[in-house]
Amino acid sequence: MAEPLNIALAGLGTVGAGVVRLIETNAELIARRARRPIRIAAVSARDRSKDRGVDLSPYRWLDDPAEVATQPDIDVVVEMVGGSDGPALALARKAISGGKSFVTANKAMIAHHGLELAAAAEAAGVALKFEAAVAGGIPVIKGLSEGAAANAIERVYGILNGTCNYILSTMEDTGRDFADVLGDAQRLGYAEADPTFDVEGIDAAHKLAILAGIAFGTRLRFDAVETTGITGVMAADIAQARALGYVIRLIGTAEIDRGGASPGLFQRVRPHLIHCDHPLASVDGATNAVVAEGNFMGRLLFQGAGAGAGPTASAVVADLIDIARGEKGAAFSMPSHELESLEPAQSGHRVGRSYLRFIVPDRPGVLAEITAAMRDAGVSIESFIQKGRGGDAGEVIVALVTHEGPESGVTEALKILDGSDSVARPPLVMQIIGG
Amino acid sequence: MAEPLNIALAGLGTVGAGVVRLIETNAELIARRARRPIRIAAVSARDRSKDRGVDLSPYRWLDDPAEVATQPDIDVVVEMVGGSDGPALALARKAISGGKSFVTANKAMIAHHGLELAAAAEAAGVALKFEAAVAGGIPVIKGLSEGAAANAIERVYGILNGTCNYILSTMEDTGRDFADVLGDAQRLGYAEADPTFDVEGIDAAHKLAILAGIAFGTRLRFDAVETTGITGVMAADIAQARALGYVIRLIGTAEIDRGGASPGLFQRVRPHLIHCDHPLASVDGATNAVVAEGNFMGRLLFQGAGAGAGPTASAVVADLIDIARGEKGAAFSMPSHELESLEPAQSGHRVGRSYLRFIVPDRPGVLAEITAAMRDAGVSIESFIQKGRGGDAGEVIVALVTHEGPESGVTEALKILDGSDSVARPPLVMQIIGG
Repeated sequence: MAEPLNIALAGLGTVGAGVVRLIETNAELIARRARRPIRIAAVSARDRSKDRGVDLSPYRWLDDPAEVATQPDIDVVVEMVGGSDGPALALARKAISGGKSFVTANKAMIAHHGLELAAAAEAAGVALKFEAAVAGGIPVIKGLSEGAAANAIERVYGILNGTCNYILSTMEDTGRDFADVLGDAQRLGYAEADPTFDVEGIDAAHKLAILAGIAFGTRLRFDAVETTGITGVMAADIAQARALGYVIRLIGTAEIDRGGASPGLFQRVRPHLIHCDHPLASVDGATNAVVAEGNFMGRLLFQGAGAGAGPTASAVVADLIDIARGEKGAAFSMPSHELESLEPAQSGHRVGRSYLRFIVPDRPGVLAEITAAMRDAGVSIESFIQKGRGGDAGEVIVALVTHEGPESGVTEALKILDGSDSVARPPLVMQIIGG
Repeated sequence: MAEPLNIALAGLGTVGAGVVRLIETNAELIARRARRPIRIAAVSARDRSKDRGVDLSPYRWLDDPAEVATQPDIDVVVEMVGGSDGPALALARKAISGGKSFVTANKAMIAHHGLELAAAAEAAGVALKFEAAVAGGIPVIKGLSEGAAANAIERVYGILNGTCNYILSTMEDTGRDFADVLGDAQRLGYAEADPTFDVEGIDAAHKLAILAGIAFGTRLRFDAVETTGITGVMAADIAQARALGYVIRLIGTAEIDRGGASPGLFQRVRPHLIHCDHPLASVDGATNAVVAEGNFMGRLLFQGAGAGAGPTASAVVADLIDIARGEKGAAFSMPSHELESLEPAQSGHRVGRSYLRFIVPDRPGVLAEITAAMRDAGVSIESFIQKGRGGDAGEVIVALVTHEGPESGVTEALKILDGSDSVARPPLVMQIIGG
């Protein structure tokens, strides 16, 4: 058998321990598939004494994760330190410039610095791989950059954050409100103590920016992802959606916008109404799913475990097997200088149906003002529901679904209503998929 | 830019024309992703004069597909001639031994001769690729052999034949019977004039044998796939399934059977009852879907267009892009001599619930005989339904669902009933997934 691929693990949290366990458990199988053994040569984390549930004594221990970048016998550095900048980024730069391939699950770092690192990896002739950064155990980066490589992809969208999906589907199953379910999710370990990155949609936005770059062959623009999380979704919205035949999911959508003078990059993370017949509607709990639409393959769906030690380790080691096989690939499916630079697109050219929910004072004239704003903005209303109290005392919930029309009309209507005392709080706007 | 990858197309039916159209339409994008152009150097088919909807005049025409194997400037032969043996196999052997990489959509040939061709390709140092052979535009071969490569996969199953799925989902939507819907499907082009390969499950069995080899790292055993098609599924079965909360789908299942002294390879194509909550239940029409369960990644689902010129061409060209990138891979995810040789497993160790449907004479004592057989075989009955006439005059339909138990019990019960005049025709047995 050929020489082993020597790897070093930097960061030994849940995922790091999962990678150790996977490489030990499936060692023989991995060697057959990779055509050489994958050998853990060194491990590194801040606290050596911590019990991680795996025996690390067979491996060389380095106290400073930065050291893994300079060990001469290491072929690949696997970074599981986390954080978009700081030690993780310093390690990435040092490992790559030192001629080591680099594998990471760090979506924040790739969303922010992926282009720089890809260019550095190309210059150094090493691999930069991050299958585990998007949708956990689902090989969606490989699926798009290789499996769908023959296609012009114009749209990619999906459920990219397991925490939000768990919260939304639990709200759906139990009728409980967001804050209540979030508390449970934190106690059960499905949400972090500081859940901001997840529930505000930032984690999904990181993943979406990476997917868009790969799917479209465009330079990453995380800064241009329009992001709304799920904190504004009320139990009443979920009940309302269900009555109309929909479920609510946090969806990341990226599209090439061809409505303007030149193509633009549209990227948005926002809760959506998904029709019950759409495959994404049955994606429950912490599952992730990604849909890509290509000009020859049609609609392709990938679905699986979006997080957790096992699935994430599966993706990390798939990257290592590729490298062991000598298949370095290009980080974003083509050399970084070939990626197109597209300007961010506004939503103005998008056409579809929308759900709008207002919390309004319980007094005459409010509905008239809202419907007048819709009319003045050219938005045609398909259905209109006034529900009982849902907000504070003296407030009622009003929801409406528009007919298919330009999103710019909805934006315009909301602008007309902005500042009106008929609208007590900022409205919730969700686009509708399917149905 | 690097030298083009020169390819020759043998066979210019729907898929062949689709490949030409894709390579022309997406040429610039393909060159960016493949890091070199993919150039059609020669085309070949039996009838030069036929209108295929694409202009073939720019390409060197060869009257004899066998000639593409010997053109010195050709790097890759793309075979779309079809048939498990005959000209396709002769071409494959000649091209590979002549040092050309070989890409095909020919599932029958790979199911029957894939191991021989893989060994030949390894000996010649060329690529053998067949992403398009399984599940059309879905990159499931890449997904399993690379994306899921870190996992021990113990089970792979899915909807592998679009024609059967179209017929079953149309029967479900319309309440019509098999023969009736098949006739329509033939008129609409969803089924061939001779539909045997599709409706008898042979096409799905070809694909299942290939998937099993890749997922488990085992030598292909198409001969050992236990195959039952959909011709025996009646409208009454579909109505009955729906009443119980299930849909009927033709499912190919492959598993490693660890119930015996040594592991065995279980492979079966058969109609199944799928619970409405299971992701495969919403796979309608000609769509395909594949589920794989790995020991770290958990359950992974791929879904997309299972046939058609565009999706199939997408898979063919994905293989070409891999080859252009220098990523030849191993045909079955590891060198063919590393594939394990497992004996076929009987269903005896499987445990689950089953649906059994009998057409019986409308007279006293029949139900007693069936229930006695179940009792004597140790099969516990969960529900029992006697429906009105469904077969010929004087016959009624009796269906039952078993509690979870060994499949061997069901086999035993049917053996007891075999030859009894209480059972007018061979019963239909379907396993139950989900619910």
